[in-house]
Amino acid sequence: MHPTRVHDLGFAQVDIGREQRQGLPEVVYGPGKTPGQIRAIVAELLRDNSGPVLVTRVDPGTAAEVLDQLPAGSYDATAGLLVWRPAAANGFALTVVSAGTSDWPVAAEAAAVAEAVGLAVTTVQDVGVAGLQRVLRVREQLRAGDAVVVVAGMEGALASVVGGLVGCPVIAVPVSTGYGASLAGVTALLAMHASCAAGITVVNIDSGFGAAMAAHRLAWAGSRRA
Amino acid sequence: MHPTRVHDLGFAQVDIGREQRQGLPEVVYGPGKTPGQIRAIVAELLRDNSGPVLVTRVDPGTAAEVLDQLPAGSYDATAGLLVWRPAAANGFALTVVSAGTSDWPVAAEAAAVAEAVGLAVTTVQDVGVAGLQRVLRVREQLRAGDAVVVVAGMEGALASVVGGLVGCPVIAVPVSTGYGASLAGVTALLAMHASCAAGITVVNIDSGFGAAMAAHRLAWAGSRRA
Amino acid sequence: MHPTRVHDLGFAQVDIGREQRQGLPEVVYGPGKTPGQIRAIVAELLRDNSGPVLVTRVDPGTAAEVLDQLPAGSYDATAGLLVWRPAAANGFALTVVSAGTSDWPVAAEAAAVAEAVGLAVTTVQDVGVAGLQRVLRVREQLRAGDAVVVVAGMEGALASVVGGLVGCPVIAVPVSTGYGASLAGVTALLAMHASCAAGITVVNIDSGFGAAMAAHRLAWAGSRRA
Amino acid sequence: MHPTRVHDLGFAQVDIGREQRQGLPEVVYGPGKTPGQIRAIVAELLRDNSGPVLVTRVDPGTAAEVLDQLPAGSYDATAGLLVWRPAAANGFALTVVSAGTSDWPVAAEAAAVAEAVGLAVTTVQDVGVAGLQRVLRVREQLRAGDAVVVVAGMEGALASVVGGLVGCPVIAVPVSTGYGASLAGVTALLAMHASCAAGITVVNIDSGFGAAMAAHRLAWAGSRRA
Amino acid sequence: MHPTRVHDLGFAQVDIGREQRQGLPEVVYGPGKTPGQIRAIVAELLRDNSGPVLVTRVDPGTAAEVLDQLPAGSYDATAGLLVWRPAAANGFALTVVSAGTSDWPVAAEAAAVAEAVGLAVTTVQDVGVAGLQRVLRVREQLRAGDAVVVVAGMEGALASVVGGLVGCPVIAVPVSTGYGASLAGVTALLAMHASCAAGITVVNIDSGFGAAMAAHRLAWAGSRRA
Amino acid sequence: MHPTRVHDLGFAQVDIGREQRQGLPEVVYGPGKTPGQIRAIVAELLRDNSGPVLVTRVDPGTAAEVLDQLPAGSYDATAGLLVWRPAAANGFALTVVSAGTSDWPVAAEAAAVAEAVGLAVTTVQDVGVAGLQRVLRVREQLRAGDAVVVVAGMEGALASVVGGLVGCPVIAVPVSTGYGASLAGVTALLAMHASCAAGITVVNIDSGFGAAMAAHRLAWAGSRRA
Amino acid sequence: MHPTRVHDLGFAQVDIGREQRQGLPEVVYGPGKTPGQIRAIVAELLRDNSGPVLVTRVDPGTAAEVLDQLPAGSYDATAGLLVWRPAAANGFALTVVSAGTSDWPVAAEAAAVAEAVGLAVTTVQDVGVAGLQRVLRVREQLRAGDAVVVVAGMEGALASVVGGLVGCPVIAVPVSTGYGASLAGVTALLAMHASCAAGITVVNIDSGFGAAMAAHRLAWAGSRRA
Amino acid sequence: MHPTRVHDLGFAQVDIGREQRQGLPEVVYGPGKTPGQIRAIVAELLRDNSGPVLVTRVDPGTAAEVLDQLPAGSYDATAGLLVWRPAAANGFALTVVSAGTSDWPVAAEAAAVAEAVGLAVTTVQDVGVAGLQRVLRVREQLRAGDAVVVVAGMEGALASVVGGLVGCPVIAVPVSTGYGASLAGVTALLAMHASCAAGITVVNIDSGFGAAMAAHRLAWAGSRRA
Repeated sequence: MHPTRVHDLGFAQVDIGREQRQGLPEVVYGPGKTPGQIRAIVAELLRDNSGPVLVTRVDPGTAAEVLDQLPAGSYDATAGLLVWRPAAANGFALTVVSAGTSDWPVAAEAAAVAEAVGLAVTTVQDVGVAGLQRVLRVREQLRAGDAVVVVAGMEGALASVVGGLVGCPVIAVPVSTGYGASLAGVTALLAMHASCAAGITVVNIDSGFGAAMAAHRLAWAGSRRA
Repeated sequence: MHPTRVHDLGFAQVDIGREQRQGLPEVVYGPGKTPGQIRAIVAELLRDNSGPVLVTRVDPGTAAEVLDQLPAGSYDATAGLLVWRPAAANGFALTVVSAGTSDWPVAAEAAAVAEAVGLAVTTVQDVGVAGLQRVLRVREQLRAGDAVVVVAGMEGALASVVGGLVGCPVIAVPVSTGYGASLAGVTALLAMHASCAAGITVVNIDSGFGAAMAAHRLAWAGSRRA
Repeated sequence: MHPTRVHDLGFAQVDIGREQRQGLPEVVYGPGKTPGQIRAIVAELLRDNSGPVLVTRVDPGTAAEVLDQLPAGSYDATAGLLVWRPAAANGFALTVVSAGTSDWPVAAEAAAVAEAVGLAVTTVQDVGVAGLQRVLRVREQLRAGDAVVVVAGMEGALASVVGGLVGCPVIAVPVSTGYGASLAGVTALLAMHASCAAGITVVNIDSGFGAAMAAHRLAWAGSRRA
Repeated sequence: MHPTRVHDLGFAQVDIGREQRQGLPEVVYGPGKTPGQIRAIVAELLRDNSGPVLVTRVDPGTAAEVLDQLPAGSYDATAGLLVWRPAAANGFALTVVSAGTSDWPVAAEAAAVAEAVGLAVTTVQDVGVAGLQRVLRVREQLRAGDAVVVVAGMEGALASVVGGLVGCPVIAVPVSTGYGASLAGVTALLAMHASCAAGITVVNIDSGFGAAMAAHRLAWAGSRRA
Repeated sequence: MHPTRVHDLGFAQVDIGREQRQGLPEVVYGPGKTPGQIRAIVAELLRDNSGPVLVTRVDPGTAAEVLDQLPAGSYDATAGLLVWRPAAANGFALTVVSAGTSDWPVAAEAAAVAEAVGLAVTTVQDVGVAGLQRVLRVREQLRAGDAVVVVAGMEGALASVVGGLVGCPVIAVPVSTGYGASLAGVTALLAMHASCAAGITVVNIDSGFGAAMAAHRLAWAGSRRA
Repeated sequence: MHPTRVHDLGFAQVDIGREQRQGLPEVVYGPGKTPGQIRAIVAELLRDNSGPVLVTRVDPGTAAEVLDQLPAGSYDATAGLLVWRPAAANGFALTVVSAGTSDWPVAAEAAAVAEAVGLAVTTVQDVGVAGLQRVLRVREQLRAGDAVVVVAGMEGALASVVGGLVGCPVIAVPVSTGYGASLAGVTALLAMHASCAAGITVVNIDSGFGAAMAAHRLAWAGSRRA
Repeated sequence: MHPTRVHDLGFAQVDIGREQRQGLPEVVYGPGKTPGQIRAIVAELLRDNSGPVLVTRVDPGTAAEVLDQLPAGSYDATAGLLVWRPAAANGFALTVVSAGTSDWPVAAEAAAVAEAVGLAVTTVQDVGVAGLQRVLRVREQLRAGDAVVVVAGMEGALASVVGGLVGCPVIAVPVSTGYGASLAGVTALLAMHASCAAGITVVNIDSGFGAAMAAHRLAWAGSRRA
Repeated sequence: MHPTRVHDLGFAQVDIGREQRQGLPEVVYGPGKTPGQIRAIVAELLRDNSGPVLVTRVDPGTAAEVLDQLPAGSYDATAGLLVWRPAAANGFALTVVSAGTSDWPVAAEAAAVAEAVGLAVTTVQDVGVAGLQRVLRVREQLRAGDAVVVVAGMEGALASVVGGLVGCPVIAVPVSTGYGASLAGVTALLAMHASCAAGITVVNIDSGFGAAMAAHRLAWAGSRRA
């Protein structure tokens, strides 16, 4: 199987080779695609790949239509995620920590995608820096993992605080919650980049998916190295 | 003395009445004014007001030229501040805390202006949130004051953390240090506004002066109330 | 009762200790929470705290569902605020002044939250600077209070004008009303920061809540000092 | 003389016809032009037009080199303006009011250009809204003119206040002074547009020239009508 | 009648004195006000002022409810304008020119408000600069008026072109039509300010009302002068 | 037939002369126009021009109403395009390549407009740079055409990659798909301009129409030259 | 010679194959490179390519140092361009038109690069839209060429006007001249994209080089087709 | 040794505990610090920590002054980095790839910091996506490492391309090179976040340091796991 193979569905060129080429599943972005288009792409991936198949940001109605004909999959409504053939656990421990209750849907996407690709996920919710004791009481839990995903809207300060507590990789996800000066997540994104904590990295606003895939790259490279 | 009296120097209308009208000194903004203009305004304020007279953002050369003819004043080079007739201490305890060493000049302006108008100032330097223990070890010190000024550039997260530790007024000053995503202080300003800590307030970027005057308003109103 | 105690509801870590730690109530932000979640958090706070319990930005339908099971609370529809156990008046006099009729909802939130935490609130509506006599006729009223909250959209100039009239603390709230160059409140926020009036402070766009909590900090620190 | 005539100097197409076509002088923008280029254009305009000839934003050195060969002109160093053949006074009364001492260079350009094209200019300096009495004491002076140019940096609130005091045209000029949230004049520009005062108009940041020319259009149209 | 008189309706401070103080009607901004509130303010203005009474940006349903009890007024649905007691024509000739068909609603507001305050309005529609002959054929018409309002979205270039053709005042209105790089009118606003045509002025995005009031100031000052 | 002729429909000045003046059809922008207005303009163009007549961004309902009375036209629902009298093929080969499935509607508009004005269009879909082999396998196809239109949202990197593969003109269209840091297409627009590939050009966000017309200019000039 | 060959100089990977692969010279961007680095790259390109070799944005001092050892080249100081082996004229007629005298350096770069790659260039300077007759008198000249490059700062309106006059390709170059609302060329860039003229394309701010290379692509593709 | 220990130098609170707490060195940010301050902090860290000591963004003059008294360190002028006690190699293979020659200083900082903390670094320079063969020829080299740092200014497209080629972690560094639409690195930062390649992460503009520390976290966590 050659890693650059592509299947041409007309409306989409399905990248059949990514799994082998990169060790990453070719994840389907749901918005703008009809249930029929999603079904066609998923079927292609199920047939020609061997690992997990994921579709993100799927609303419940679309999910039901897709699963009606591809019933082996499962749907996580909070995360908006469809999954077929989830990967077996690979032993990589990921902690997903969110700053406020309204950051939870993005954290849920990060957790669900990470689990689908084989990571062992622990979630910690509602750990805002304005109540520092909430951070401090989970300090050891954060330090125990192989990587931490920090999900935070508003000023995004949790990323700096966690970045100063742990030595493992920190992947920060700005969230578009909040109002006014939050600027739909842009403020959190900029603040996370301007962070005084050394070596934290950032993914796109609301991209729980991106954070999970970044963690998957860590796990994949780690297992290859081992 | 009528509080709306104005002295017309041609190039400037000196607000002689502000001291009586608001209990605030009429502070002179130095940049763009010649030593001669500064001297003329200061002389006017010294003659017709009775409280402190301040000029901010003065470089050493200008300061020397001004003091040459108005030698009763003093100059703080780090703060860039000229002061005549500093106010007697009024018992209001202000803590000025800064996040990094490069935030110090702005914190110094805040501290110097606050002292000149009669506040009792304590400074705490280099308390970044990426080393949370540095914040925690001064927690009681922060709680002991009547108000806290938080000076922070980069992501400005210290304001949120302090805002969650103390019950007294918190005045946050974003600083234009940092690079890239710091956007010359705009990121810190936005992040401080988007803060998850309830009831913290913000002044303009790099405005140690503004923070000190906001604290002075607290002291003035408090003493009037008492 | 230890001030760092946290109650873990799974979806939320309720900060039971803030009341004792900071003298501030732990206010619940309503948007994105179900009536059930709000009820659970409120019940927790009513049981383990002794002061006021507040939920902000609640729509009438949600409010009705919450009050149905926690009927001791009251709902202010203009402010969108749910309150249980409002604090007794503490004698701190707060004036809330708004610039235009469309700024009123934000001013109403400021006033309602401030009253719930024990401040004595006076409101002055529709005081635009384009009709300066409207400001001048309430000048003494503004000067009489312990602090002033200025609520203004569009160009936000009322903050500068009030800042030049009173000596007490001025907390400015930019509002997202207006169109075009108002940029959903960003212009007012920036203009308030660039204000020529010394020592005014600013909170987030539309955050009547933030302004009220900032005023509460003033009252809390003042009473502690007295 | 046909109003669309153009003289081609190679590096510039001198619009010889604007004077007759629009009643406006063809004003030369100085920056980026050598003294020789300025001299060539001015000579062309002096020969083929009959009214005033102006060059803006000229530094003293360039001005001296130009005047050396075209000595009939005069130079205003504060305004940075070179003028030949200033127009006779046409009886139109323009008031130029500036908000702070650092706004004066822009106000000076507005005043100098306006006088050069025949307007009768009165200037009022340092009228900040944080000292409202400074505005109120010149109220009648502002009302007496045929138009008012308001020059203001920082938050630009003076435009709203003046716009609410006078019935004649108000031309607002945002200024790039200030720091932080002033954003080099962009905040003042936006705030002036978002102003609650009806019917005020705005020109480009720092464009004293633009304001003067806008006033000249008023005078020209008014005199044509009379 | 004293020009600073204000009528206090609780939710609004009606500026009864503006008409005499400035020669401008106190125009009511419709959005956010209930039909009842509009009726109360209009009734106040009809009773205590003698000139035109206007309410802008009113939808047809609200207009019908208001007119039901104040039937002497009239409603212009395209302009969204309610008018009572329109002013008699004062002989000032205003031309309103719009760049594209989608700019028409804003131009219609400018025209309707201008007529209601007594100006003689001529409208010229769909004069885009990409078909320059459309501009050139109305050149004399544009030159004949006492002032020109230019209404243009997208790149707003029509303002520069008209500004180079006429000598009378040019008031430019950026419009929020267009997509992508138009940035909801911000691009046109900036471009109009950066215009190479000398002395054109700009009002807020979509503010046909502001342009009309600016023109009214011209007419008022001109008639006072005559 | 004179190329500056304009037909005045009151609400629109139909540019009858563009076809002869520029060799370009006068394309009608649909949004904001009623079916009746569209019909009137189209009828005018069909009568007085001889080439293709196009209306862009038309929804199906409006399209049906227009075609009901002008049935010789055809409607492409994906592209939102109405066409009458499509031009005969002129032999210019245009390739339209899109980066993701959600970029397809914009690419469809580019393709449909280009075909309507006589270009021979080939489309290549879903060629994202994250799977470079998808680009490489169509390399020769891209090189074979006379010009390439690259349609890409998100980071818009496909434009740089294609710009480095082909020597013919590359017209890049940023697309408003994506979320967060995509900033509704602004990021792609800026990135395409900052591209390291020499000589690629860019049109407005989502403007498949603009790209097709730019290609038409190439074809027109090329055929004139031949 | 294989078109993907790359020469590795350590600090640079010289793309030897671009000439054959794309028909485009590999142009060197001067800023940040030492004279020695430039010499090494140029020598490589002179040896292994056969067409023109260009280095852009070179200051006179650097140019002298480079030419000292590679004296066959020539330097255009206004354009900042070094050229070796300029291409023979290929008959493609390009018109470069600039809006103001301060736009000339960018126009000069466009013209010099275009000539170096074989285009026949005509330049037209200082054609501002505020004096429309300056545009109209060169109308036929603009129509005669195979393509037009429009170089304009400030509001960039010249691109729309030219785009409405000619049928051939129009490549617009925004320029960073101007002040205030010009935003260093960003306003012109946005305005050119929002232009009402169909089918004009835009390159990066100040990129005379980019416009020339875009024109070269037109010429290359046209000659391949012929 | 307790990991929260802090040494108070007055102007700085040296975080002595970070090394043990996080496994990360406490790196000193050079700008704004005097040679004396740097020496004091370095001496503190050398005495109380056992691992590498780094100071970033140091100019040669300052470096010489510091090394004069702490001669055991070394200085890398391209990277601007001072290092004492570099860590022994830990076997983690990091590839640093840069897109253009002007991105090299940032890449050099990434490489030097990474080596100082013990990573085995390979650098690949000048791999722009406009010459795709330059990427493809190093494909296997990129795949061989444990992580890749991608350093790119302008449109930053290299991050997407590399992100699609390798399965290991990709850390993207936007660079502030380029002009116009590059917006000093903001465009590259946004584009990297909007990237279509799944799971790439981003650090602050020009932060080679941040990328190296992110890689160090990967190595640290990987070695802890092993």
